[in-house]
Amino acid sequence: MKTALIQQRYYGSKEATIARTLEMIAQTDAKLVVLQELHQSEYFCQSEDTAFFDYAEDIENDIAFWAEVSKKEQIVLVTSLFEKRTEGLYHNTAYVFDHGVLAGKYRKMHIPDDPGYYEKFYFTPGDLGFEPIDTSVGRLGVLVCWDQWYPEAARIMALKGAQILIYPTAIGYLECPKDRLDELCEKENTPEEKQKMREAWISVQRGHAVANGLPVVTVNRIGSEKDSSGILEGIHFWGHSFVFGPQGEPLAMAEEEETVMEVDIDLKASGEVRKIWPFLRDRRIESYTCLQKRFCDEKP
Amino acid sequence: MKTALIQQRYYGSKEATIARTLEMIAQTDAKLVVLQELHQSEYFCQSEDTAFFDYAEDIENDIAFWAEVSKKEQIVLVTSLFEKRTEGLYHNTAYVFDHGVLAGKYRKMHIPDDPGYYEKFYFTPGDLGFEPIDTSVGRLGVLVCWDQWYPEAARIMALKGAQILIYPTAIGYLECPKDRLDELCEKENTPEEKQKMREAWISVQRGHAVANGLPVVTVNRIGSEKDSSGILEGIHFWGHSFVFGPQGEPLAMAEEEETVMEVDIDLKASGEVRKIWPFLRDRRIESYTCLQKRFCDEKP
Repeated sequence: MKTALIQQRYYGSKEATIARTLEMIAQTDAKLVVLQELHQSEYFCQSEDTAFFDYAEDIENDIAFWAEVSKKEQIVLVTSLFEKRTEGLYHNTAYVFDHGVLAGKYRKMHIPDDPGYYEKFYFTPGDLGFEPIDTSVGRLGVLVCWDQWYPEAARIMALKGAQILIYPTAIGYLECPKDRLDELCEKENTPEEKQKMREAWISVQRGHAVANGLPVVTVNRIGSEKDSSGILEGIHFWGHSFVFGPQGEPLAMAEEEETVMEVDIDLKASGEVRKIWPFLRDRRIESYTCLQKRFCDEKP
Repeated sequence: MKTALIQQRYYGSKEATIARTLEMIAQTDAKLVVLQELHQSEYFCQSEDTAFFDYAEDIENDIAFWAEVSKKEQIVLVTSLFEKRTEGLYHNTAYVFDHGVLAGKYRKMHIPDDPGYYEKFYFTPGDLGFEPIDTSVGRLGVLVCWDQWYPEAARIMALKGAQILIYPTAIGYLECPKDRLDELCEKENTPEEKQKMREAWISVQRGHAVANGLPVVTVNRIGSEKDSSGILEGIHFWGHSFVFGPQGEPLAMAEEEETVMEVDIDLKASGEVRKIWPFLRDRRIESYTCLQKRFCDEKP
């Protein structure tokens, strides 16, 4: 199955950014196209500003628009939109379109909150659980960004029959203010620290591929985006979108440029891998009760 | 905390092998010493032969012996022994000794069974659950080999307060019979397939380090060991014992030689890592019920 990962920068406005996204989609004949997290706008969660909620006002039109794109291009399209559900209730939601039809949606379940990523201000944690989405190219385990760090999310998708894990993502390095090198920023911005963070991000998802015998597709933003509040300097999104196969074998990895990265993914490979590495066979489900607790500090 | 990983070959007998283990332990002044899986004997699970159950007959003496070693060397020592519990009931058990005292034991929970690794014949799956072991160097999350592939096991240890994950291991490539290159063997033995397998094994555990903000210590066997039944050719254990830090940063990795690999591990680093990458904060425990099921094929 030919898959395209659209790794792009933000072009200063919704219109210009979408125009570039459409250009990039038009370059590929992939059947499955995956866009990055919140691809219509800048990554606005760098500050807490009620004005940004306006970005979610057009959600019905946004859904209709991307449905139309998936119809015109005759593709399965994984999008990432800012969903207004009612007044004062918003989600970070991946909508999946299949040749013009909304196949399903996933509301980001794990919501981060750390310097530069103030998502808990904007997004109510998802209430749809971890449900794969059935499409004409297969059953897609769509998760979003912060979910990447949670083996639980990947495993549940696998146990619900997902054939592939897909993560639209927005992650990068905090830019250091030129005149105010505080300790956190300085520490985070050595080349060694940058590499450590990026490799951690790659490793944990490669681990999901191995543990679940599933391919993993992750699409990240690139480019530098300012913090509109001026409190932080901004984020430099590190790109490096990637695909691993069901044994964690590297199939593709981008650099930090814009790219339409095309990869052939064999969804049937998982079945063969799982026959000889039958991890699902031996799970000790009766001994996993602790996983449903916040912390297991009581003695048994 | 100075830690030593003892990666060694099998020397043809229990006596000779233990003598070499003691030599290697004596070379280090580490406070924590970790031995490989079933380090007293060959990896006998290559065939199903009731004669090998005799290896477990001396378990009480074995425990006393390694307790004495830990006392003499003034160390915390992680061993991996074949435990006879009663007639017809055996476990693959990691015993942890602390300056002469048995600090605790972990009975391997996930038991493999695939060509060359017929462990289900020998080992009853552990019934002690995933309980870290308290020692003078910290709370150790000791797991064994096949457990490596299970994010559940690592997570539970973390949720029970483990400060480090430790895996005694026996994993390698199946040797191809010289006169009988069957398809499985040929496929498994290309250099590319070997690398893919080894990297998968490393990646999934590196992922545990990242997801849990914990260092991971894994000690694997080296050397070629024949299948005594003659049905398979044998296994070439691939070594590559390693340590990753709590962000998944590589701290040490061995090659395929015998080695006493010493690594300084800072158990306090986890606390700092988890403050800025607070994955435990955001787990959606109310949505993880599927993890306690074999497969979640019923519709919600």
